[in-house]
Amino acid sequence: MSPPPTATGGGPVPGAVEAVLAALSFDRDGLVAAIAQQHDTGEVLMLAWMNREAVKETLETGRICYWSRSRQSLWRKGETSGHVQRLVELRVDCDGDAILLQVDQTGPACHTGERSCFFRAANKSGLVKIAS
Amino acid sequence: MSPPPTATGGGPVPGAVEAVLAALSFDRDGLVAAIAQQHDTGEVLMLAWMNREAVKETLETGRICYWSRSRQSLWRKGETSGHVQRLVELRVDCDGDAILLQVDQTGPACHTGERSCFFRAANKSGLVKIAS
Repeated sequence: MSPPPTATGGGPVPGAVEAVLAALSFDRDGLVAAIAQQHDTGEVLMLAWMNREAVKETLETGRICYWSRSRQSLWRKGETSGHVQRLVELRVDCDGDAILLQVDQTGPACHTGERSCFFRAANKSGLVKIAS
Repeated sequence: MSPPPTATGGGPVPGAVEAVLAALSFDRDGLVAAIAQQHDTGEVLMLAWMNREAVKETLETGRICYWSRSRQSLWRKGETSGHVQRLVELRVDCDGDAILLQVDQTGPACHTGERSCFFRAANKSGLVKIAS
């Protein structure tokens, strides 16, 4: 078998995950913010958090794993709901304290059943629900 | 003159800004994460932070104002560079601790001169620069 063309297809080579981790600036809680965006539509689905272990697992498995601040544990997105996120590409911002995950989302990303967590918008009168 | 059709066009009515602020859960530093996305292309430009005052000013002026954690002051995006962000729509996530700003970005969003701050991506070997 030929090696797969991408990191997410076949797993990173030795040292690659460490190179990504070295570019990240984790905050005082050991976290970076992670934005999930549907790779083909551009829709921003959610914002969550990752620690070193979550970043490592995500890169190695190609399935998105966050850190749940409320449960204080790794949160393998879709583990109970089935609404998994497959990693298409992981991007890092200029100062290393935010990650942009290009994903392929199965079903809704939001626990409310909405496709995106950002389903409310400010208008002239306050906050209104929008299609998501 | 007729009233403008949107909040950002003509400013919110009394109480509208307070309704948005009431839906937000500010962290222990009084901040929420704010993602800026180019409204027409879907490109995620940057992630920054807002406090109550920054949200209020953004809604009232239609120009994006963040809170600079490094300078500990309001940061009117583009004030010195001219690379302003005009607000198209402000969205709030399901649990109120993140904001999605649909913006119209003048020039590059990143202080490095890149259009987006997310100009590095993980591949099989590590982090590489991508077009942004």
